[in-house]
Amino acid sequence: MASSVNPPRGMRDFLPQEKARRERVLSVIRSVYRAHGFDEIETPVMEDSSRLHAGLGGDNEKLAFGVLKRGLTAEELHAASDPLELADLGLRFDLTVPLTRFYASHRAELPTVFRAIQIAPVWRAERPQKGRYRQFMQCDIDIIGDAGPLAELELLSATAAVMRSLGIDGWSFRINDRRILHSLLRYWKVPLDASERVLIALDKEDKIGVEGVVAELHALGLGDPDLVSSVLLGKQLTSLADDGWSLLDGEPPAWLDAEGQDVYRELSAIRAAIPDARVVFSPVLVRGMGYYTGTIFEISHPSSTSSLGGGGRYDGMIGRFLGTDVPATGFSIGFERILDLVSLPDDEAADAVALLHDAAVAESTLVALKASLIAMGGRVRLERTPKNLKPLLEQLAASGFRRVATVTATTESIDDLEFRVLETP
Amino acid sequence: MASSVNPPRGMRDFLPQEKARRERVLSVIRSVYRAHGFDEIETPVMEDSSRLHAGLGGDNEKLAFGVLKRGLTAEELHAASDPLELADLGLRFDLTVPLTRFYASHRAELPTVFRAIQIAPVWRAERPQKGRYRQFMQCDIDIIGDAGPLAELELLSATAAVMRSLGIDGWSFRINDRRILHSLLRYWKVPLDASERVLIALDKEDKIGVEGVVAELHALGLGDPDLVSSVLLGKQLTSLADDGWSLLDGEPPAWLDAEGQDVYRELSAIRAAIPDARVVFSPVLVRGMGYYTGTIFEISHPSSTSSLGGGGRYDGMIGRFLGTDVPATGFSIGFERILDLVSLPDDEAADAVALLHDAAVAESTLVALKASLIAMGGRVRLERTPKNLKPLLEQLAASGFRRVATVTATTESIDDLEFRVLETP
Repeated sequence: MASSVNPPRGMRDFLPQEKARRERVLSVIRSVYRAHGFDEIETPVMEDSSRLHAGLGGDNEKLAFGVLKRGLTAEELHAASDPLELADLGLRFDLTVPLTRFYASHRAELPTVFRAIQIAPVWRAERPQKGRYRQFMQCDIDIIGDAGPLAELELLSATAAVMRSLGIDGWSFRINDRRILHSLLRYWKVPLDASERVLIALDKEDKIGVEGVVAELHALGLGDPDLVSSVLLGKQLTSLADDGWSLLDGEPPAWLDAEGQDVYRELSAIRAAIPDARVVFSPVLVRGMGYYTGTIFEISHPSSTSSLGGGGRYDGMIGRFLGTDVPATGFSIGFERILDLVSLPDDEAADAVALLHDAAVAESTLVALKASLIAMGGRVRLERTPKNLKPLLEQLAASGFRRVATVTATTESIDDLEFRVLETP
Repeated sequence: MASSVNPPRGMRDFLPQEKARRERVLSVIRSVYRAHGFDEIETPVMEDSSRLHAGLGGDNEKLAFGVLKRGLTAEELHAASDPLELADLGLRFDLTVPLTRFYASHRAELPTVFRAIQIAPVWRAERPQKGRYRQFMQCDIDIIGDAGPLAELELLSATAAVMRSLGIDGWSFRINDRRILHSLLRYWKVPLDASERVLIALDKEDKIGVEGVVAELHALGLGDPDLVSSVLLGKQLTSLADDGWSLLDGEPPAWLDAEGQDVYRELSAIRAAIPDARVVFSPVLVRGMGYYTGTIFEISHPSSTSSLGGGGRYDGMIGRFLGTDVPATGFSIGFERILDLVSLPDDEAADAVALLHDAAVAESTLVALKASLIAMGGRVRLERTPKNLKPLLEQLAASGFRRVATVTATTESIDDLEFRVLETP
């Protein structure tokens, strides 16, 4: 069989060092979220096709991997006019669609205000490119059953605590509210039926810049050109303005109408309640998903023009499954994007030891020595002494083993071992 | 949309308490295996269909979920004569097939003796029944590049350490070797071309009992009936025999030929080197997979007739991908089967506290109090004081929250809080 030994296109194998690093980071995220009172849940990786394609996933629905029905006959294949007819299940493309299904199924067993953690992979059949994978981890927290703003505060402070615990510096929250966007559209005199196109243009700001957005809106003839420019270019919305409104500690900007100004004051209160984090008002922040209804947020970082994570309030969505409205808000950390920024000590390496041995040593001796060292709290690896020792020692050091000892036929207990320290690579 | 809110057939949602328990158990397994010098790796959940259906997965291959090719046209659907032609990928049904692919891909970057941990879900489209799921966790360790018996010892002692760390009592290792089986077949005068049918009959012992196996072999006319009975019934192989051979501390039984007796002595040496674990020689243990070549083992427990885990040596398998033979052996813990036997303390509950509050308390106060308590090492949940307090307190206690305090409009710091202890449920 000549088939490739590579993982499927756009998917990755993780070797020991990378996997250990990923698990350490996930473990920090999990424990910080748990400390903040969130509860982890898990759903299967597959959902019914009908649910994945119910219109809640936006463009991601098209990227869902379909799972073939079992036991299909040739006749059924030939009767199908659309591949989706052959797939009763699909792999989830996000963790929000499964969460709403989970909540609808288990509501009676959950707290009135349910704080959920989901740390799990999702799959999207995207064209693979640098930094985009077809299987990747998401770390979501959601609060269901609280109309805010306490829920938003808990999401943001838990997320800020995760970023601090991972040793990531220099990041900010960008915050906005769907109602601010609607206030802006009114100020710009955008016709109601053009709102969606304007939001799509604004959503591209991280790719085409503020000037690009202004140009696009002018070209489309959407909104009053002078008013659009006065807000978008006059204020340089994504940088710090001197009058303080972009840091939410000034008066609301004049181009917001009364409703927009009320929402601005809500955002200011959120900012004031999490003094440890830098919170920047980003009135052109849209976030793609159509289901957002209130506050929306992202983590921005100078290392990247795209966000490190984000989320928002989606009050209408769960009602679509339950028949009764339930408020909800969530935040998702882009695990694959933060990974390179994490700075965690390798706290395990200090205790990792390797025991070198040759064929003269009884296996039972090796197993007993290993057990004794593990019982003392160490991590232990047995290695047959090779002809050329140097590459092995280098590899052990690179794998986090800091000490090495040689076992001989006369070694009886760990007291007989002489450890030497390996040079760190 | 009237679609069900249940997870797909045969798959499960995990609610907070169950998920927390699963993660605690997985974390113990992971850390014990790491202490024993194993390295965790990860592969994508999907593999190429051609690899999943290459004949290494035995009956499990038929149970693989197929993943539909992307962008199929109606013409391609109609041209297909077999559903598998439409699936270029599939979900893995075990962790061994992906491991061999991983090793073939990354061998140059791995240690000469590679000790792998895989803790991950697998999928099988089985008919759902009690205790059988279509998505379930496997916890595998494998040692690639060591011809044994040290590798077997490391697998067994690491597995025994996991069982101890999880507080599971009363289990034993059942151990055998494919070469013992062949020695038995020779003793029974089974024609070579009937070996496979005899092994299949023996493999059913946990379901049909020793008598059932004897009856089946007699009915099939395979082997000399008197010899078969003398070993299978005369010795009651799965119970303790007085002459010590079933505990591997006696002389080899006389019905083994010279080769079988040599292998028996190897097994005796393995048993002697792990004195902490109970090791029972089970000469009719087959384990289904055709790829096993040497020592095979299972964990048995009085709670179940099926094993809690198992594995064995599969020296030929990796060579099929590499073109060069590489010895390998592995052990898989049946995570879903051990879960009910685990006895771990809930070490987190002691520090979990709930803060009750009403609308008069500023959100910023709540967030600050929560942060202070978390900084002291606690797990904290905010709860709006309900009209009827009792159900909430019961739910908090059931979720592991042990202390509760009420925040009022005059609360300024955690020094103002009075904690009361919740009764454990």
